[in-house]
Amino acid sequence: MGGADIERLIALLARLPGLGPRSARRAALALLRQPQTRMLPLAQAMEQAARSVRTCSSCGNLDTHDPCGICADLARDRAVVCVVETVGDLWALERACVHRGVYQVLGGTLSALSGTGPDDLNLAPLLARLEEGGVREVILALGATVEGAATAHWLQDRLAAYDVPVSRVGQGVPMGGALDVLDDGTLAAALTARKICS
Amino acid sequence: MGGADIERLIALLARLPGLGPRSARRAALALLRQPQTRMLPLAQAMEQAARSVRTCSSCGNLDTHDPCGICADLARDRAVVCVVETVGDLWALERACVHRGVYQVLGGTLSALSGTGPDDLNLAPLLARLEEGGVREVILALGATVEGAATAHWLQDRLAAYDVPVSRVGQGVPMGGALDVLDDGTLAAALTARKICS
Ligand SMILES: [Zn+2]
Ligand SMILES: [Zn+2]
Repeated sequence: MGGADIERLIALLARLPGLGPRSARRAALALLRQPQTRMLPLAQAMEQAARSVRTCSSCGNLDTHDPCGICADLARDRAVVCVVETVGDLWALERACVHRGVYQVLGGTLSALSGTGPDDLNLAPLLARLEEGGVREVILALGATVEGAATAHWLQDRLAAYDVPVSRVGQGVPMGGALDVLDDGTLAAALTARKICS
Repeated sequence: MGGADIERLIALLARLPGLGPRSARRAALALLRQPQTRMLPLAQAMEQAARSVRTCSSCGNLDTHDPCGICADLARDRAVVCVVETVGDLWALERACVHRGVYQVLGGTLSALSGTGPDDLNLAPLLARLEEGGVREVILALGATVEGAATAHWLQDRLAAYDVPVSRVGQGVPMGGALDVLDDGTLAAALTARKICS
């Protein structure tokens, strides 16, 4: 039912994370009921965002300008760099307001399964910062997954050459859990309870 | 984080039914990661659907043409009219493939609370069909809510003047439940177990 245009809309909505086929139909219906006041504004917001989105060349965050708002914010402590797997993790930490430094978004984890090696991780900007000096601490805020732990270990080795403390968020991240689904309190606890790596 | 364009996109996505603030951010991130291959196609599908969506003047369905695909389908039994509250209910019954007749979408239920009276329901096309004759059965497929039951009772009275059997889907619709969240089997059982109203 609904014609090819409507079926196409439902199919594209159903591919969004968090929306199954059923909720995609509900969302499509809500939009179709208000094509002018609801669907067109969303479509235009998407086109605008698609045109303006940039990957921050400094940290890997997604924003509408490069460097991103965090890297450009002079009030942030550029000497404390928090390493995260994804932009979603960065946004989760920002929402929790638990980190006043800057970030480095790896864009993934080391994974034999998905064939992600060291060269596939966005690490160069952090290494450049470390070379320049002035970094006081590197916080590894990776997920408590097998890949996250392996990546953290590899990073500790990789960063050992620089004379800078490397810490890991420890308590608070449940085993097997990803960071971007945690509540703000858990994120705050995990960051506070970080430990300096040996 | 993310700039005004991105915040606006997240806010609009969060208003979709089924997407809370958290999943709206996840959805926005998925789109922002693939602006050209994922976000623009969805935006364009929305604009296309917003331009082409029509309310069927015959049954109240939403489709890209008027009359809708169901009303225009000569293989459907126009003598059996299934009355539903919403387009979502119509789509749910269509997905379940349990009704081979046509529909009448009321667009709501009688409700003192929301101030919805008989004149606010889309009933005229059904009454016109009944006047014309040739209707063999009217099936009331309304939700098992207080409002749905009240509306079904009122419809039975309203339709009594026409010499046509009026049935109600009975078993299978859980109390307090809306039709469009039921599984196909339950919908099929409810339709099969319909009873002719006294
Ligand atoms: Zn940045
Ligand atoms: Zn129709």
